[in-house]
Formats: sequence, C-alpha cells, structure tokens
Amino acid sequence: MILNRRLALGATLAATAAPFISSTQAQQAPVPVGQVTSYYRYRVGDIEVTAVNDGTFSRPLDGLISNAPLPEVKKALIDAFLPDDKLTIPFTSLVLRTGGKLVLIDAGNGNNGPATTGAWMRNFRAAGFDPAEVDQVVFSHFHSDHISGSRLKDGTAVFPRAELAVPAAEWAFWMDDARMAAASEAMKGAFANVRRVLGPVAGTVKRFEWDREVAPGVTAINAVGHTPGHTAFAITSGAGRMLVLSDTANHPALFVRNPDWSGVFDMDGDQARSTRRRLLDMAAADRMQVAFYHAPFPATGFIAREGNTFRMVPVDWQPAI
Amino acid sequence: MILNRRLALGATLAATAAPFISSTQAQQAPVPVGQVTSYYRYRVGDIEVTAVNDGTFSRPLDGLISNAPLPEVKKALIDAFLPDDKLTIPFTSLVLRTGGKLVLIDAGNGNNGPATTGAWMRNFRAAGFDPAEVDQVVFSHFHSDHISGSRLKDGTAVFPRAELAVPAAEWAFWMDDARMAAASEAMKGAFANVRRVLGPVAGTVKRFEWDREVAPGVTAINAVGHTPGHTAFAITSGAGRMLVLSDTANHPALFVRNPDWSGVFDMDGDQARSTRRRLLDMAAADRMQVAFYHAPFPATGFIAREGNTFRMVPVDWQPAI
Repeated sequence: MILNRRLALGATLAATAAPFISSTQAQQAPVPVGQVTSYYRYRVGDIEVTAVNDGTFSRPLDGLISNAPLPEVKKALIDAFLPDDKLTIPFTSLVLRTGGKLVLIDAGNGNNGPATTGAWMRNFRAAGFDPAEVDQVVFSHFHSDHISGSRLKDGTAVFPRAELAVPAAEWAFWMDDARMAAASEAMKGAFANVRRVLGPVAGTVKRFEWDREVAPGVTAINAVGHTPGHTAFAITSGAGRMLVLSDTANHPALFVRNPDWSGVFDMDGDQARSTRRRLLDMAAADRMQVAFYHAPFPATGFIAREGNTFRMVPVDWQPAI
Repeated sequence: MILNRRLALGATLAATAAPFISSTQAQQAPVPVGQVTSYYRYRVGDIEVTAVNDGTFSRPLDGLISNAPLPEVKKALIDAFLPDDKLTIPFTSLVLRTGGKLVLIDAGNGNNGPATTGAWMRNFRAAGFDPAEVDQVVFSHFHSDHISGSRLKDGTAVFPRAELAVPAAEWAFWMDDARMAAASEAMKGAFANVRRVLGPVAGTVKRFEWDREVAPGVTAINAVGHTPGHTAFAITSGAGRMLVLSDTANHPALFVRNPDWSGVFDMDGDQARSTRRRLLDMAAADRMQVAFYHAPFPATGFIAREGNTFRMVPVDWQPAI
C-alpha cells in the first residue's frame, strides 16, 4: 500500500497523504507495487485479536528435518503447492485487547532478525496501535524471533510501560550460567541474546507457571520440547476459545501434516513431537480455533484429523469485523 | 485500519494523517476496531495481479443446492470448520497490470449489492489505483455482482476511460428481447440490470469469442453453464500461468469439494457441473494457480485432486512482493 510504503521511507506528511486527496493527484502517484499491510483482526468471544506479521525468512531444506529423507520433505512441499527448494517461514505474533488491557503474545524479530523480517512495528502501527499503549508482553519462549522485538539492539525498551511475563521454566533454563557455559558456540549466541533482551528487566519480569491465567482470559499451557519452557496458550472468552500453539509446529504444511518429524528448531526433538501430537489431538478433538507463530498469515485456522495425521484448515478471511 | 476507516467516513486530511505523525498523537486516537484493507498483490510472470475484495454476503442454506440433502451440505460446511446455518460468500475481482495496461476482470457489486458489499472502490483506491486509470474491464458474465461495479445506480460510468469487453455469447443471451420477454419475473430483474449497466455502452462494447486473447496475456475460455456465456480466463506471462475460474465454482468448501453439486446460482446445472469438472481437472493436472471470484480472500490457490473430488489449497500469504 502506497501509504505504508511511504511512511516506512520516512516521507513527509504532505507527500504521504497527497495520493488520497483527489483522483487527479492520485494519477500522479507512481505505479504501486507494494503489498497490503499484513495485519488481520478477529475476535475470540469478547477478546479482540490482531495478528501482526513480522515478515518471512526462507531457508534451505538441508538439515531442516532430522528424521525424514529430503525427497519426503520435498514431496510434502509439492503436495502443498509450495516451492520444493526452500522453506519460507512467516512470523506472526498476536495483539490482544482483553479485560481493558493491551497484551502481546510474542514480539517478533525487532531489528535483530533477517533482512526479510522487521515489519512488525510498521504493521502494528498500521493496525492503530502504539507501543506505549502495551500493558503486557507474554512470551511463549526465548528464541530471538519471539523476544527480540521487545528491545532494540541499542538497548531501548520497545514497550516502555509493559510488564513482561515469561514461562518460569524458560527463565530457569536460559538464565542458568552453568548451562550457558556448557553450551555450544552456536547456542551461546542464543543465551547471550536472551540476556541482552531480558537481562535488564530481570528484577521486574513476571515468571509464570503452566495452567495459570497469565493475562485476562489467557492461560499458559505446557508445550515443552521446542525449548525447555516452551508454552502454548488457551484464550477463552464466553463461548470463544482459541489455542495459541506458538512453535509447537513450524510451517503446518510440514509439521501439521507430518507431526512426527523433528525440526532443527526443536531443542528436544522427541519431547517436541510428543507435545505436538498431544496438542494437535486436543485441537482436532475439540475443534478449537488455533494460531501458530509460523503458519501462513493470518496464521489462524483449525486442525482436521486425517487418519493418523492432521491438516491445518485456514479460517475464511473476513473483510469486516 | 484507522486510516481507511476514516477515509471512508470522509474525514479531513488533517484528521486522517494525525495518528501517524507521532506516538504522542497516536495515543489520542480512538481504540481501533477496523479490519485491514482487503486487497492482496501477487505476480503471474510479469503481470502484477491485485485481488480486490468487495465484501461478503451471507445467505441461508435452504434452496442453495438442488441435488444434495441439507444434512450433507451442513456436513461439508462443518468439515471446513464453517458455520453450518448459512453460507458466507465473498466477492473478489482482479486488477491486472499487463502490457502497460490496467485491466479489470469483473467489477464487483458497485452500489447495487447487499449492504455487506460495496467495499471494492475503497479497497481499489487503497491499493493505489484510480478508476480513471483503468484501460479495460473484462467481464466473465453478466450477474449483477460482477458488472454493477462498472456503473453507479445514478448512471455514472465508474471507469470513464475503459473499454468494456464481454463474452459474445453472454451479450447475445442477455440482450435478446425475446428471451427477456419470456423470462420469469425474478429473471426479468437480472435482464433489466444488464441493460441498465451495459445498455449505454452497446455501441462501443467489445464482444469477444472464447480461445482469443482479450487483454495482454489474458485468454478467454468457455466455461458455460453458470450462465450461457460464462467465461474463465487463462493468464500467461513467461513461465507464469493462472486460471481465473470466475464462478465455475462458488465457495470452494462446497463446490470444489463436491463438484457435482448444482448450486442455485447456476442457470444450467448440468452444463455447469460438466464445465466445473473439466476445468478443475485441468487445474489439478497442470498444477496451475487458480483464482475464484467467490473463494475466501485473497481468493487464489491451487486445486489438489483427492480421489474423485478436489480440494482448494490457498496460496501462502506473502507479506512482501
């Protein structure tokens, strides 16, 4: 969309608004090539949910899945009519207006991710929000693409008023100095990023246990495996229910269709597969709406059981709320 | 989205742009409840395609399908995780930038549709287009939700510079006075609307035959049955190909999953079912991207064969183009 593209480029107010003043002026605008802003609003009972996308990241297939041969992985992508030479992973976090509070579940890559990410703040603002409004940020786990959006690389807290809430088990793992010292070089980077982002709020961060309400209508659920404290969330309001599955599955075309595959992202592959089956079974049996952090935008739908496996059925897009 | 909502309400420039100037001012904005603008941009080879939604219309299930019992229709909706007491039908037309021309395929309900439609012009402008830019409007058929967007009820031509192109067989049917005279009262309304919208351009309208290129890279395809001149389109550019299936199937959860069902919309049910099988078979065999006028936004994806039936697989949303 012209407006957002120009805003992103830091254009002046006059230049930004001009194409909307009249038809004549609009004709002078350059040929538009921009994509629409990627936010999407829906309701779970009385809770207003806004899915806010942070971009995508494409990675090669080699080394992606440890317990399936590459041709099977390619076949799963082909069956989903996706390119079979890479996996394009979207990042979509949730903004909840619940109980008079503005609550985030995860915060995107911030300015610490690949160049094809970092759209979160633009999309969040386009959805009508301001970071200073945010009351609480709830994290599912401490991978960089979920937490880095809460603190810029220069140290600035992005949500100055917000209480940060974290899974107690996740905090215990990543803040353990002995574990960091024993970690591989690659993992040391992840530990360091957790400490960069969350270290400054160590005194005020709220550590939550599973099966507790962490925000109005939002209950934390043990979804361990992807990381040692990985958390899903049940959102309930009146008759409305949604299961926020976080990274219980990465792209559904691979991991909902093949729930027993072990992705390179999962720190404990066996535990992750067991958790995935348990939560997908629950979502399918209860016909609960689900949201995944890495599903195609708007990243929400349902889980249909098919024999011993599953399929994600995206919601029908509603152009009005 | 605040901006578009306010534009739709005719707010002033100053009020419109204010929430975007600074964080401080944004905090004074009212709580946003609006949905994001429903346009979506993608490419077919070198052709830029923009899907532009016009809203939705919900209708009861009674009388919807003539050759399936209501419980089976409800089951198909439940299988798709949709409400089983109504069918919500979206309307999405296409804007093509092809060969230096701006070409529409169908034009929405204009101001002649149900109250939950009529969003097309707002979404079209939000995508950066102006109606005065449009070089050509190609119609798939003459039902009101496809043609009324080209002429307001007060008689104004919406695309003042555009050449209108219509299927010759469709023109021959709807402009036949004897057929109109013999039509039922309900059908007489449809005839009258065709004449209201297209009568004023009878001298200049371009009538096209099937298997001919009607716009750069756009070839008309016989898809008869839904109406006597109903037309699909093949869009080709380099290695890019897409089949615009128009109303060959209404909502895919019903009519792609159950291609032999006869919908109340189809003027010749048997012919429509035969055409539907032929074109879905082709799309599945060739793995061609497809677009449907009445599929959930962004109304594009692929057709997977499953036994003797089909499933629509939506494209993965790309937040950048």
